[in-house]
Amino acid sequence: MAGSTYGTVFQITTWGESHGKALGVVIDGCPAGLPLTEEDIQIYLDRRKPGQTSISTPRKESDQVEILSGIFEGKTTGTPLSLMIRNTSQKSSDYSQIASCYRPGHADYPFDAKYGFRDYRGGGRSSGRETAGRVAAGAVALKILSAIGIDICAYTEAIGPVSIDYDRFDKAAILTTPTCMPDAGASARAESYLKECQLAKDSSGGVIACLVTGLPAGIGEPVFEKLDASLAKAMLSIGAVKAFEMGDGTLAAKSRGSENNDAFFMENGAVRKKTNHSGGTLGGMSDGSDLFFKVHVKPTPSIFQPQDTVNRDGENVTIEIKGRHDPVIVPRAVVVVQAMTALTILDLMMLNMNARMEYLERFYRR
Amino acid sequence: MAGSTYGTVFQITTWGESHGKALGVVIDGCPAGLPLTEEDIQIYLDRRKPGQTSISTPRKESDQVEILSGIFEGKTTGTPLSLMIRNTSQKSSDYSQIASCYRPGHADYPFDAKYGFRDYRGGGRSSGRETAGRVAAGAVALKILSAIGIDICAYTEAIGPVSIDYDRFDKAAILTTPTCMPDAGASARAESYLKECQLAKDSSGGVIACLVTGLPAGIGEPVFEKLDASLAKAMLSIGAVKAFEMGDGTLAAKSRGSENNDAFFMENGAVRKKTNHSGGTLGGMSDGSDLFFKVHVKPTPSIFQPQDTVNRDGENVTIEIKGRHDPVIVPRAVVVVQAMTALTILDLMMLNMNARMEYLERFYRR
Amino acid sequence: MAGSTYGTVFQITTWGESHGKALGVVIDGCPAGLPLTEEDIQIYLDRRKPGQTSISTPRKESDQVEILSGIFEGKTTGTPLSLMIRNTSQKSSDYSQIASCYRPGHADYPFDAKYGFRDYRGGGRSSGRETAGRVAAGAVALKILSAIGIDICAYTEAIGPVSIDYDRFDKAAILTTPTCMPDAGASARAESYLKECQLAKDSSGGVIACLVTGLPAGIGEPVFEKLDASLAKAMLSIGAVKAFEMGDGTLAAKSRGSENNDAFFMENGAVRKKTNHSGGTLGGMSDGSDLFFKVHVKPTPSIFQPQDTVNRDGENVTIEIKGRHDPVIVPRAVVVVQAMTALTILDLMMLNMNARMEYLERFYRR
Amino acid sequence: MAGSTYGTVFQITTWGESHGKALGVVIDGCPAGLPLTEEDIQIYLDRRKPGQTSISTPRKESDQVEILSGIFEGKTTGTPLSLMIRNTSQKSSDYSQIASCYRPGHADYPFDAKYGFRDYRGGGRSSGRETAGRVAAGAVALKILSAIGIDICAYTEAIGPVSIDYDRFDKAAILTTPTCMPDAGASARAESYLKECQLAKDSSGGVIACLVTGLPAGIGEPVFEKLDASLAKAMLSIGAVKAFEMGDGTLAAKSRGSENNDAFFMENGAVRKKTNHSGGTLGGMSDGSDLFFKVHVKPTPSIFQPQDTVNRDGENVTIEIKGRHDPVIVPRAVVVVQAMTALTILDLMMLNMNARMEYLERFYRR
Repeated sequence: MAGSTYGTVFQITTWGESHGKALGVVIDGCPAGLPLTEEDIQIYLDRRKPGQTSISTPRKESDQVEILSGIFEGKTTGTPLSLMIRNTSQKSSDYSQIASCYRPGHADYPFDAKYGFRDYRGGGRSSGRETAGRVAAGAVALKILSAIGIDICAYTEAIGPVSIDYDRFDKAAILTTPTCMPDAGASARAESYLKECQLAKDSSGGVIACLVTGLPAGIGEPVFEKLDASLAKAMLSIGAVKAFEMGDGTLAAKSRGSENNDAFFMENGAVRKKTNHSGGTLGGMSDGSDLFFKVHVKPTPSIFQPQDTVNRDGENVTIEIKGRHDPVIVPRAVVVVQAMTALTILDLMMLNMNARMEYLERFYRR
Repeated sequence: MAGSTYGTVFQITTWGESHGKALGVVIDGCPAGLPLTEEDIQIYLDRRKPGQTSISTPRKESDQVEILSGIFEGKTTGTPLSLMIRNTSQKSSDYSQIASCYRPGHADYPFDAKYGFRDYRGGGRSSGRETAGRVAAGAVALKILSAIGIDICAYTEAIGPVSIDYDRFDKAAILTTPTCMPDAGASARAESYLKECQLAKDSSGGVIACLVTGLPAGIGEPVFEKLDASLAKAMLSIGAVKAFEMGDGTLAAKSRGSENNDAFFMENGAVRKKTNHSGGTLGGMSDGSDLFFKVHVKPTPSIFQPQDTVNRDGENVTIEIKGRHDPVIVPRAVVVVQAMTALTILDLMMLNMNARMEYLERFYRR
Repeated sequence: MAGSTYGTVFQITTWGESHGKALGVVIDGCPAGLPLTEEDIQIYLDRRKPGQTSISTPRKESDQVEILSGIFEGKTTGTPLSLMIRNTSQKSSDYSQIASCYRPGHADYPFDAKYGFRDYRGGGRSSGRETAGRVAAGAVALKILSAIGIDICAYTEAIGPVSIDYDRFDKAAILTTPTCMPDAGASARAESYLKECQLAKDSSGGVIACLVTGLPAGIGEPVFEKLDASLAKAMLSIGAVKAFEMGDGTLAAKSRGSENNDAFFMENGAVRKKTNHSGGTLGGMSDGSDLFFKVHVKPTPSIFQPQDTVNRDGENVTIEIKGRHDPVIVPRAVVVVQAMTALTILDLMMLNMNARMEYLERFYRR
Repeated sequence: MAGSTYGTVFQITTWGESHGKALGVVIDGCPAGLPLTEEDIQIYLDRRKPGQTSISTPRKESDQVEILSGIFEGKTTGTPLSLMIRNTSQKSSDYSQIASCYRPGHADYPFDAKYGFRDYRGGGRSSGRETAGRVAAGAVALKILSAIGIDICAYTEAIGPVSIDYDRFDKAAILTTPTCMPDAGASARAESYLKECQLAKDSSGGVIACLVTGLPAGIGEPVFEKLDASLAKAMLSIGAVKAFEMGDGTLAAKSRGSENNDAFFMENGAVRKKTNHSGGTLGGMSDGSDLFFKVHVKPTPSIFQPQDTVNRDGENVTIEIKGRHDPVIVPRAVVVVQAMTALTILDLMMLNMNARMEYLERFYRR
């Protein structure tokens, strides 16, 4: 399983399974001189961990991060940061049935097809717990981006049929509602919907939106490493994400050019756009306006209804999943979206420092 | 502009601008022993080139490919294939206005912001002509995939408000309708709509769908190099693509788990799925069913109406674009979607050959 | 400090400083199905650790490896293996002087120049302890290579003026002599020489040789990823290595073609070579004969004589290094050479599985 | 044959065989704004081409470079530079014998073993002509390095038993002697030696040295991407190179620490070294002094004596090589060493721009 490394200059490698001893991430290429504590990382991990609200699983995962290397006198040294989270509360007994059956909507079957067998405890490497390493690394990237004036705000836009009302957008609510919706009213309605899903032994999908402010124009490498293409991959790399929309997204396909083009104008000596249908990219590079994109998340595949499936012996069977599972993936994935966005943008910004001869000459000052 | 290289094992590097001397691609990592002629590549390039129908620009680009290296006695040698297409019909005079103005919906402004200046002739590197190298490389990947039983079928699903009727799906029509729609009736209606757009000096967006059959289960590397994530990046790397949907895509976000999960069953000793809401991936790996995804394309940004914009001197100006431009990008992008899909899948299949100890032992037979 | 990741398919990322909490390595791309225990790894780490003989520092580093992920039911799962070694016996007080001075022959000054400051405790990331992660990963690669019939034998060829006598080559002695020499007599003489160096508050350099048997022809990618070029980088990446010789090495520059060429002949239906001046590579690929190369290691830079240097304040000062330091680096580096050779060869062998169209067709059996 | 791409940020991909239509290189990641003409590149290619002196083959290869993309108004645009050299004087008839036989000292056999067959005309991809692409790319890197005050001087130090006298070092002679020796007297003696080799139907090896001045301290990424390790790989990637020595090289293995350590001192406010045994690197990073390393090159394997070998049918045969071959590889490889050094250093310098948080904050100025 190569594929656990992400980024070219600011490069992370995650490791760990749901029910192994620990999971973590190595960050290589973090610039030296960043003040960094475990608390800086813990606040993001705490937003991902379960057991906090009525709509997330009552599993207790303390998810305490430990920095094992790369810090000296409170600052990053430029050497790899190794971050580890011990697994503490795994109860393997809950997962015994899935050893032999392929759960619908889960990765059990492709894992067996590819590797010959799998660590079936809690989904192993395909568990949502895998994202803990991403969030820990993202916390570091977010701290760096913040220092250069870039803010990344991700939030829940919809759960099932319930969408937020942008006229009631309240950024503070993202951190206080159990749904991570920036609209307390919509959040309450979404909670009701999720209760209904739970009663029906069912689950719900939803939509996460992300807004990036402060990004200069020109970030992203044209052709294959476009900013929007890189974000799309980052987002689809999060388990359960099934669609990505940049700016107007699917709506652009129904538009005419006269509707979709964003007119430029000057404001205080800066190039601005009158609208932002593009979502802040042109030709795969940031265009100086806010980045805006959406991510569509499928419903939790672990539902408590009986489901038809097959087992490893090639027999048709019925599976009834037990255990503790969130009725919706979205709220806990919001911080993962934020983290992956930070990792993607920071890496492209660092690559951008080599784009012009004048930058190189200025840097080496001769 | 690093970012012109794509793939890890089957690796391509494209180069060239719209109005330079030539453009092309180097393919490194192509297995030795594949019979290959220029004609194998030319048939795909011919599907991308303009001037063929009433809905594409009357520009003539002959787009003749020349294989410069990597072939001996009619077969690939394992060394890099260098494919070149000379630019022959560029008329720079058409493009003089854009030297100083930033066209709305185009990459002019970010290019200047990043690099300090740009080759403004015909859009330079951000021109759709850049995709010729991808299509040429894709032709080689498609030939290899075909030899191992994998078929990739891309087609136009919608142009503006006109969608195909899946009950009238006619694969042959993809190559015969000017829209690349597999439904001649819908294609005729789409042509009418495009005529209307052109009369209004406007343009239209649309949707491309892609179906991959014959792919074994287990392709894709979990975590960051997921099959669907890699496809998302491949698709968003195509200029003008604004959204990507895997399987049910955005619909999944509105679904319940009981609707979205695909039940497994056995058929003739093989694991099958009763439905394919997932679009053929689970946990980022192929699940043995058909891959299916959609790509949403924005309308051609070059429209003939006056548009507000700014120039390099920071003045608000009005631009009126001249020249020859397709009223819709979609039909010529269909073969680009097919090519990028082939490049992505082949590379992941080659990486997959290392997934198991038993494969390694069998290969080195000791 | 990007640069902590090595390999393309079998890819490792090391982390950790001499005096941090721990150090370790993540192995991504290890094939699934390899039986693996901590003991498999520990035997190699034990060969690297200090405090074992009169010629190595009396520091005690227990270097116990812990496997944190990637194993299930005793076998690798294909997911990342995370291996950690806790630092247990570091005494920071020994290293206080070097906080402000640049030790001659050490990386102190370039670290400050590059990163602005450094973790000076025990050399931080530039300590020889950094190689523990490489050795742990190498142990896994060695187990895989062994399973496909490839053996890697590294040993000390010379320490200062004392060289082994190839007529007395005794492979078993590599593991029993304190010098890792395959010649007990030479080893005894080398020990005497090292005693003499120690009395003179000085240190010695030496030479490590490495022999690889069982490697099939064709391993290595021509041009930039040549087998010998990759080995050269692997070896020079080990701290203190100053020269690399493939086969006859420097002698080849003094030879004539008639002396240096290795004649081919047939033996039992196989292509063989009458001599092996090339050291087992031609055109950057293995030629089916044994690989043979040498690595030249500089003397331990930490010597106990007073040395002229400068401090961080830009003053000329005299430094007298205290503490516990090996009088020669070579013996403990032997297992590092073996590990880096294994990692390099295995990665190239895995890439080689994609070289031919017929391999691809055979693998996907259609 | 993946392995034709070199570098991470300043990234090149070479292609082409000895007797194909053309060969060339794509440079991706070249900063925008560099003035560049074909003449800038041609002067380096002219130093590599044969037929110029009595000690090089009388083959005529005009090696005219054509820039196909990436330049606008005389400057690089930041998009890929595609450089092509048409093959013009190849006479395939000279090479018919080697189609079936494996030439000793050549890559014929490993190519067949790896790929199943090979382009045998003139050595195909393993021909020395492959380096033309490297030299063309190196010319661009050299121009950039020159603009930031870095000079790379490569020269012939020895041919067979004839070495230069450093007391007579004359830099200008490198470009005027047929041997590229910076010592006209030694060059004359080397020419005599080569004549003698030719009369004996034999060939000679030799040594190339390289000196880099003006490099700031801190270049190179510790651990696996060390500056010296990267240079070692770059050098061994040049066909026929069999050994690499950094600074004192093999001599370091025979030295004591007190001899090998370079003492630091202050000079005009800068950190300097009293000696340079290290060759300008410490801990894999530049230490602010000159880089110095040596490369040992084997004798031309194409000699005109009868040689024992085998053919593709597995028969023992005798081969007598015909045609035109240099009696020594060294002089024409000098510019290749210079080019590969430039490519390696520039790429590491560009990566270095991301090493510190303060660089990032200064670059994005907020």
